[in-house]
Amino acid sequence: MDAMSRIERAMHAAIAHADAPVAPPKLAEAISYSVFPGGARVRPRLCLAVASACGDEDPAMADAAAIAIELLHCASLVHDDLPCFDDAPTRRGKPSVHAVFGEPLAVLAGDALIVLAFETLVRGGLGQVHRLPALIAAIGRSVGMPSGIVAGQAWESEPGTILEDYQRAKTGALFVAATTGGALASGADPAPWRRLGECIGEAYQVADDLRDAVADPEELGKPVGRDAALGRPNAVAALGIDGAVGRLDALLSEGVESIPPCAGWSELRQIILMQAQRLVPKQVVRSAA
Amino acid sequence: MDAMSRIERAMHAAIAHADAPVAPPKLAEAISYSVFPGGARVRPRLCLAVASACGDEDPAMADAAAIAIELLHCASLVHDDLPCFDDAPTRRGKPSVHAVFGEPLAVLAGDALIVLAFETLVRGGLGQVHRLPALIAAIGRSVGMPSGIVAGQAWESEPGTILEDYQRAKTGALFVAATTGGALASGADPAPWRRLGECIGEAYQVADDLRDAVADPEELGKPVGRDAALGRPNAVAALGIDGAVGRLDALLSEGVESIPPCAGWSELRQIILMQAQRLVPKQVVRSAA
Repeated sequence: MDAMSRIERAMHAAIAHADAPVAPPKLAEAISYSVFPGGARVRPRLCLAVASACGDEDPAMADAAAIAIELLHCASLVHDDLPCFDDAPTRRGKPSVHAVFGEPLAVLAGDALIVLAFETLVRGGLGQVHRLPALIAAIGRSVGMPSGIVAGQAWESEPGTILEDYQRAKTGALFVAATTGGALASGADPAPWRRLGECIGEAYQVADDLRDAVADPEELGKPVGRDAALGRPNAVAALGIDGAVGRLDALLSEGVESIPPCAGWSELRQIILMQAQRLVPKQVVRSAA
Repeated sequence: MDAMSRIERAMHAAIAHADAPVAPPKLAEAISYSVFPGGARVRPRLCLAVASACGDEDPAMADAAAIAIELLHCASLVHDDLPCFDDAPTRRGKPSVHAVFGEPLAVLAGDALIVLAFETLVRGGLGQVHRLPALIAAIGRSVGMPSGIVAGQAWESEPGTILEDYQRAKTGALFVAATTGGALASGADPAPWRRLGECIGEAYQVADDLRDAVADPEELGKPVGRDAALGRPNAVAALGIDGAVGRLDALLSEGVESIPPCAGWSELRQIILMQAQRLVPKQVVRSAA
């Protein structure tokens, strides 16, 4: 089974636990709408790729780590789109959750997805219970305070925020969870995998800033020019388009170089380089050509 | 150390993890504001009382269970008070979190508290790792979908909600987590402790409805008559004041009778009966006298 099929199957299994005859139907529907159809599932794919590179000796735990990370990512998108943050009318090419289900169910869908992430970790971790605390701690750290995605979002409410601090918490943290979580699920030391997550996370943020600056809304699936309109820290605003493209390349090279020795070293290297090619928006590639 | 001091100390230790030099200061402040000063801390007190009745053989794990439950309760209060739900200007006798910090930080404070609850469970569970999955699952079930407090709140968005279903999910679930979580933390079978949690949870909801119907806002610390104004299911509306008081008494008796045999049976019985006396609003006691 390829990684995408594996992720979608595990995602459906996780979401099935939140639905049940006793569940409030509209919230169940809002949760499903929040996660299907997904985006590129880059975080869970990275997590599974690292777990495989480390031997994938407990696929159920690797799945759980990957899915928990994606559920937390989806939760953050639902809450970030709320009227009090981005007030985004669309996401992934369709109306945002609060636009369809209303604000109350959007808040609750995000809350429920956070809880479901931790429940999913426990369900998938029963085969290697001694590994669970470190895995839950690593993923919890990536999403909560003081330096996870929730903290990253909160930096928007602070004056004088520094670009890199903001990006690290907002996007980088969940990528670090993907690499370290994949390693932990396979019984490997997570520490040497941090840098890969940091580099890819920052590269994605730079790519997102590039798309926000140059893409058309149809390709992006959400409104463009949002960061600039909201006066948000942004790599393109700080470095220009060429500078941002250079930064992206440098980050990906550093990330690939940081991959520690492991059974699936060369396959992982190839996966990351292949996916990296899709990162740069085609308008930028065109204008550079 | 009495239970309240034990809870406050453990609560400060848990919150300290969310604060750090790298944390966004306003969100750190909003989180602290959400949990201090607390209310009566009834859920963590119930959790510790059950853990003690079962021998309290791992106090760190009992503390973690109690604090996680209180953090989740505080998270639900912060989110329930948001403009899109109750739009409550006050809570626990002071301005609500969103009134002081704004809506974005109130959403994020709730999210961060949910994550912190699970991190707290892991930190306190390292001494008995094999007990952690069941404890995390029990507490996760009480707060998430399909039948935890998030689900309970979502029933407000469904037409034709049945009073008892709503109450069970909205208030009962976290009390069930308190009794079963206390038992699990002490290595006891959680199943016989469910009914006590259900009964006390429903009794608290009935008491809350009574207070909402008769209390003055100063005593309550939040606006009164809110449920009626929002057309919400309510025991007083369904049963009248006398009927609601009768229901409350019946629930507490059933709860106390359900306590399974355990080392601290008689102390626990006494604690619950003592605290139950404070449940009925004094206006109702006066009018009945």
